[in-house]
Amino acid sequence: MDLLGEREPEVYGSLTLSQLDRRIEEEAARLGVQVRIAQSNVEGQLVDLIHEARGWADGIVINPGGYTHTSVAIRDAIAGLGIPTVEVHFTNLASREAFRQVDIVGGVCVGVVAGFGWRSYTLAIEALAGRTGSRNDA
Amino acid sequence: MDLLGEREPEVYGSLTLSQLDRRIEEEAARLGVQVRIAQSNVEGQLVDLIHEARGWADGIVINPGGYTHTSVAIRDAIAGLGIPTVEVHFTNLASREAFRQVDIVGGVCVGVVAGFGWRSYTLAIEALAGRTGSRNDA
Amino acid sequence: MDLLGEREPEVYGSLTLSQLDRRIEEEAARLGVQVRIAQSNVEGQLVDLIHEARGWADGIVINPGGYTHTSVAIRDAIAGLGIPTVEVHFTNLASREAFRQVDIVGGVCVGVVAGFGWRSYTLAIEALAGRTGSRNDA
Amino acid sequence: MDLLGEREPEVYGSLTLSQLDRRIEEEAARLGVQVRIAQSNVEGQLVDLIHEARGWADGIVINPGGYTHTSVAIRDAIAGLGIPTVEVHFTNLASREAFRQVDIVGGVCVGVVAGFGWRSYTLAIEALAGRTGSRNDA
Amino acid sequence: MDLLGEREPEVYGSLTLSQLDRRIEEEAARLGVQVRIAQSNVEGQLVDLIHEARGWADGIVINPGGYTHTSVAIRDAIAGLGIPTVEVHFTNLASREAFRQVDIVGGVCVGVVAGFGWRSYTLAIEALAGRTGSRNDA
Amino acid sequence: MDLLGEREPEVYGSLTLSQLDRRIEEEAARLGVQVRIAQSNVEGQLVDLIHEARGWADGIVINPGGYTHTSVAIRDAIAGLGIPTVEVHFTNLASREAFRQVDIVGGVCVGVVAGFGWRSYTLAIEALAGRTGSRNDA
Amino acid sequence: MDLLGEREPEVYGSLTLSQLDRRIEEEAARLGVQVRIAQSNVEGQLVDLIHEARGWADGIVINPGGYTHTSVAIRDAIAGLGIPTVEVHFTNLASREAFRQVDIVGGVCVGVVAGFGWRSYTLAIEALAGRTGSRNDA
Amino acid sequence: MDLLGEREPEVYGSLTLSQLDRRIEEEAARLGVQVRIAQSNVEGQLVDLIHEARGWADGIVINPGGYTHTSVAIRDAIAGLGIPTVEVHFTNLASREAFRQVDIVGGVCVGVVAGFGWRSYTLAIEALAGRTGSRNDA
Amino acid sequence: MDLLGEREPEVYGSLTLSQLDRRIEEEAARLGVQVRIAQSNVEGQLVDLIHEARGWADGIVINPGGYTHTSVAIRDAIAGLGIPTVEVHFTNLASREAFRQVDIVGGVCVGVVAGFGWRSYTLAIEALAGRTGSRNDA
Amino acid sequence: MDLLGEREPEVYGSLTLSQLDRRIEEEAARLGVQVRIAQSNVEGQLVDLIHEARGWADGIVINPGGYTHTSVAIRDAIAGLGIPTVEVHFTNLASREAFRQVDIVGGVCVGVVAGFGWRSYTLAIEALAGRTGSRNDA
Amino acid sequence: MDLLGEREPEVYGSLTLSQLDRRIEEEAARLGVQVRIAQSNVEGQLVDLIHEARGWADGIVINPGGYTHTSVAIRDAIAGLGIPTVEVHFTNLASREAFRQVDIVGGVCVGVVAGFGWRSYTLAIEALAGRTGSRNDA
Amino acid sequence: MDLLGEREPEVYGSLTLSQLDRRIEEEAARLGVQVRIAQSNVEGQLVDLIHEARGWADGIVINPGGYTHTSVAIRDAIAGLGIPTVEVHFTNLASREAFRQVDIVGGVCVGVVAGFGWRSYTLAIEALAGRTGSRNDA
Repeated sequence: MDLLGEREPEVYGSLTLSQLDRRIEEEAARLGVQVRIAQSNVEGQLVDLIHEARGWADGIVINPGGYTHTSVAIRDAIAGLGIPTVEVHFTNLASREAFRQVDIVGGVCVGVVAGFGWRSYTLAIEALAGRTGSRNDA
Repeated sequence: MDLLGEREPEVYGSLTLSQLDRRIEEEAARLGVQVRIAQSNVEGQLVDLIHEARGWADGIVINPGGYTHTSVAIRDAIAGLGIPTVEVHFTNLASREAFRQVDIVGGVCVGVVAGFGWRSYTLAIEALAGRTGSRNDA
Repeated sequence: MDLLGEREPEVYGSLTLSQLDRRIEEEAARLGVQVRIAQSNVEGQLVDLIHEARGWADGIVINPGGYTHTSVAIRDAIAGLGIPTVEVHFTNLASREAFRQVDIVGGVCVGVVAGFGWRSYTLAIEALAGRTGSRNDA
Repeated sequence: MDLLGEREPEVYGSLTLSQLDRRIEEEAARLGVQVRIAQSNVEGQLVDLIHEARGWADGIVINPGGYTHTSVAIRDAIAGLGIPTVEVHFTNLASREAFRQVDIVGGVCVGVVAGFGWRSYTLAIEALAGRTGSRNDA
Repeated sequence: MDLLGEREPEVYGSLTLSQLDRRIEEEAARLGVQVRIAQSNVEGQLVDLIHEARGWADGIVINPGGYTHTSVAIRDAIAGLGIPTVEVHFTNLASREAFRQVDIVGGVCVGVVAGFGWRSYTLAIEALAGRTGSRNDA
Repeated sequence: MDLLGEREPEVYGSLTLSQLDRRIEEEAARLGVQVRIAQSNVEGQLVDLIHEARGWADGIVINPGGYTHTSVAIRDAIAGLGIPTVEVHFTNLASREAFRQVDIVGGVCVGVVAGFGWRSYTLAIEALAGRTGSRNDA
Repeated sequence: MDLLGEREPEVYGSLTLSQLDRRIEEEAARLGVQVRIAQSNVEGQLVDLIHEARGWADGIVINPGGYTHTSVAIRDAIAGLGIPTVEVHFTNLASREAFRQVDIVGGVCVGVVAGFGWRSYTLAIEALAGRTGSRNDA
Repeated sequence: MDLLGEREPEVYGSLTLSQLDRRIEEEAARLGVQVRIAQSNVEGQLVDLIHEARGWADGIVINPGGYTHTSVAIRDAIAGLGIPTVEVHFTNLASREAFRQVDIVGGVCVGVVAGFGWRSYTLAIEALAGRTGSRNDA
Repeated sequence: MDLLGEREPEVYGSLTLSQLDRRIEEEAARLGVQVRIAQSNVEGQLVDLIHEARGWADGIVINPGGYTHTSVAIRDAIAGLGIPTVEVHFTNLASREAFRQVDIVGGVCVGVVAGFGWRSYTLAIEALAGRTGSRNDA
Repeated sequence: MDLLGEREPEVYGSLTLSQLDRRIEEEAARLGVQVRIAQSNVEGQLVDLIHEARGWADGIVINPGGYTHTSVAIRDAIAGLGIPTVEVHFTNLASREAFRQVDIVGGVCVGVVAGFGWRSYTLAIEALAGRTGSRNDA
Repeated sequence: MDLLGEREPEVYGSLTLSQLDRRIEEEAARLGVQVRIAQSNVEGQLVDLIHEARGWADGIVINPGGYTHTSVAIRDAIAGLGIPTVEVHFTNLASREAFRQVDIVGGVCVGVVAGFGWRSYTLAIEALAGRTGSRNDA
Repeated sequence: MDLLGEREPEVYGSLTLSQLDRRIEEEAARLGVQVRIAQSNVEGQLVDLIHEARGWADGIVINPGGYTHTSVAIRDAIAGLGIPTVEVHFTNLASREAFRQVDIVGGVCVGVVAGFGWRSYTLAIEALAGRTGSRNDA
């Protein structure tokens, strides 16, 4: 599974970026899922990272940060790839500014988890694992 | 924890309403969380059910169905109550019709989980339990 | 066939609710169609009534009244059911206020008949009967 | 009664234009209504045809096709004439593209019948005949 | 006079629902006005309550709560009844969220009083009494 | 208390401007409230009048007339002053033209009374007096 | 000078089309202006008529009727021709429906005269004659 | 007849304000119409000037300048007065910026003349004189 | 191949309509493509011309001129026909007025070529020929 | 140089209007620039003040306060004058209410300085002085 | 000539990126045009590549991919450069999602070619070559 | 102090990028302010540069170029950092295209200076220095 995201250290509170990575890896290990973690603030590098998931990843968890609301490029990359992708956010965007109510990227994702801090990531991994393992239950 | 929702049997596929309830109860038991489940298609009864959560519930998981996009009444009920609430959906609304991109209820929720069928509910319980137990981690 | 509607006695002019029912039943009898008539001012009860059409009705005629323009819940109920549904109105909404130009419910109906008072109902029954009996003519 | 419309042979399926005309004439005969049928793809000729209804027609049934959504000219012609007019469509516009939700012509019609193929025309004749014969029933 | 409203106990601060009722009744008694008080969170029951005012009430005071901004059904019920109706709110909606700036119900009311807590109700009773008693002064 | 307003003699019907003033003064006397009345059709003079309320007025009642919908200057003056202000109107704006649904001034007022002719003023005085005297009741 | 217009006999009241023509011709004669009058309800024929003004007309007076609000084709024809054109209307569009507030054709005209019945035409001729004769006065 | 306007010397080109006045007076004399001319840049003074027309003027010609697009106060003053009013402009607003396409004042005027420099005023006087003298021709 | 278009001689600069036709025919000959050229300013005649392409044309090149932005009728004709159609324009609409950014016709075309004067036509023929001859390359 | 502005004492905090004037004069003296300072809350008087700058001022610094967002009249006055004008504000409007994001006046200014309290004025003087003295550097 | 584009391998179907390059180079060679090809998914690198065209390129062909609809930065770079630029797309954007109808980049391009797969590129080269070689034909 | 910006050499006229840097450094030296200058056309690198200001910079001056109107990512980076930031532009955006009236980045800046070419930068440094040194004056 591929974990991508804008690098936003400021919003993590007392949690460092490496602590976030460790928690994600622990949760992945608990679920028996192999993860690769990458982050970039550059929209086009996120596009590149999505392209690179081709061939090995069964799912993508992505926190597009500010690009959530504007990036047609990231949207097209996800749509072109065809791998189930989940959008995650630390905070619940529905309770924030009006311009955050437009979700360009989410239109091609299978699901969204938002509002639970770092747990948004681990819940998304669990959700994708469940989808992949037993989709005919849903 | 309180689980509320519009009653939409048609979208559950092969899963019956009682099977959904049982899965939710199993997950709640696994997490050591006590749950109460109620459903109604009447917007004002959902408002009543939210009011009734006062005094005993630590969290609410709600699937407002079609009311997600229109119900100021449900929004005001959640805001007035002050209990952390999570919005859930079987499908990812961001990939559906334009009128589903307006989320009136979500503006007063702490988080959202959408796109994972019945797992949206159990992930939301897990998320709320995590929030309640260790909010200072987030 | 199932006839549902918001209960709006004021707009019927000199026609009482029971007179409306009787005319509908006469027309149904003339066409050899069995009808069930139900009315409610509660959006969620209209949703319930739609669910209850499952299993016996070949068509639904619905006058969603004021919910026509706002009810995603009624729309989702009709869409989930899959039974051909016709929207009817006493008056022609296109010649009324701007907020009545938004037709949320109509988006999942097979047709609409509006502007002919109680005849909107009987024309809709006739239309649905025609659709059901000889759809390959259309 | 006057029957006007944009000439759209493609959407009639296996039904030819003359078959449509014949069915309309049969239904009119059944109802004891005299009809004149005319079609044109030219917006201004439809305006001319509406003007020509003055003096003899008691009602107009019009399928404005694509002009439904844009033609202020046809709207003004109908409004200027003052003869009760019904808008008809083969398909239910409410379930189609966003630009078809704007109904410029319908704002001056007494009613609309849409979604029933060629039956939309015959139902509209029946509806108008009912209006003319017994308006104080409505 | 008829007093209707969404039941929103949370926003009343230290004032209980019965205290609100008592203050309204005291003010009504002071003005020599007979009042009936009813509350519901169900949009359609508010519609029913409005219908029931027919025949005995000279005026209606209504706090439509969250339905203020969305309910075409309540609007149509008030318009159909033809009894002077005043919209009231505890808070001044003009200083709140953008979606509260749309007032669907108010379009058919004779007046509005908002921003004065429970006094909004008593001022509205006084206002309606003044209207009814001496309309030719206004 | 300060009473300000656009000078609109035409809409008062048979009531002259001085009659309006006298009724307001009578009501103020009845409530034991000292009032100052001033009117101007010039937006900036209304701004000046608001500034002059500083230091002596406990409340402002303002009928911004046509400036209600456009005047950021009046809004800023009220917001800068910090004295509780109530917006009044002779008619209920919610039932008038679309451009009257935008209330720029009301966004910084504590309340609104509209639709009761000259009584809108006296009700607003009573409402403000109640707010000032016993705000913790609300 | 060229006078073009949609043919709208209904709105002329007791004035026939030939009476309108005669009055225009009298006024033109009084001003020493040569006029050609043509009318069509077909948008494209109005475009053709505009093209035909090339080479002989010093000015065009056009009543685009319902095409005022929608016709990019007429707009482009006027813009391509480069002959001063005045838009006229029997009624003042600013006081009519919202969709009449969009003036596509007017954007390439030098002026507009509206609201004066048949006098709108003669005033426009006079205005254009003034413009042509003494433009450096303006 | 009353002539009012925003004072915009800059746009008159080589024409001075007094030359404009003289031309208007010459045209009025030619038509046998008595005129009073007044100008102000203050919106509220234009409102006052409109009020002062009561009792003596048979018509008003007004150039609301920049207030055309924003002044509800001027609109209400004209509507309250009930004297036929014509809006004039030196230039054709339809060919200018988007914010000039909104005509708040024009909604209560009987007509508009725009695009003919100072002749817009004299044509408007002529138009109003025609309306007053022979309205049943139109 | 069918070449249709609004007849806009003014925009061709020094190029006459017959020179345009000749260049198109030369290019068609060079590519071994048989073309039929027709032009009309009447929207409905363009609809008729599209209908007439049925049965012999493999592709349509259309310059809808001003109808590009407004004609649902032309759109429906192209959609009903099912023959690959390319929209062409002399100029690049994206750099022109806002109302030209709405492309109603283009929504049912396979491609667009704009901004290259008469070459837009010949490039479109070449493009369509390429599509038809070797679509599995694309 | 001319300094104009809406008079908003409330927003200056501990700084009095005369202190603001003195600081502006000190900065002007330091830069060798002659300034005239005037303030009014009346939109039309600001228009008059702008007109009066003609003939002596090389630049205008204006704080249009609430008129920034609504005043076409001030915009037209600045545009008509042709003297370089800078818009200033105490606060940064981009971080305030949505209706403050519309800048009607700024569209004809050469620049804007906002967010620096009284320093916005002195920076604007410095900026204009730099523009005037050495425009070809920019 | 400079060929730039977002790198979107997924949409090319069976065509590899190097095959696309080869076909472009063959077509360029056929036309006697020297080309440089570069691709990036990073918006700012596309801006850099546009800057680098200065001094040697006579034209630019750009496929801005998802940045078409959002990139003011790419638009400004093209506008600043002043070299004729053509926008190309594999698919016809007019028939896709609503957010693809906004073309920020196209507003500063001389033309567009869309909907012909890899041929969009070669047609654009041919079009630009025609423009450069014989612009006075157009 | 940190100076960041999109690299737009084309708009600087005769001023080279190094000349701009030198002038900024001279002004900074005059004000006793230490500056670091960095530029990039890549949105995400601007985000990185903002992050790197943490720990040493007291203020940021940023010219977001085309990203001003679209970049939620830059906005979030500035908001997360909490260092006072001023937005600068060479030109006054308020007098340019409509899409430049949306200022996403400015919503989290303390001020803006626009319209003064390279002086926008030096004025912004002076403004920030004034804010930092004596914020309680403002």
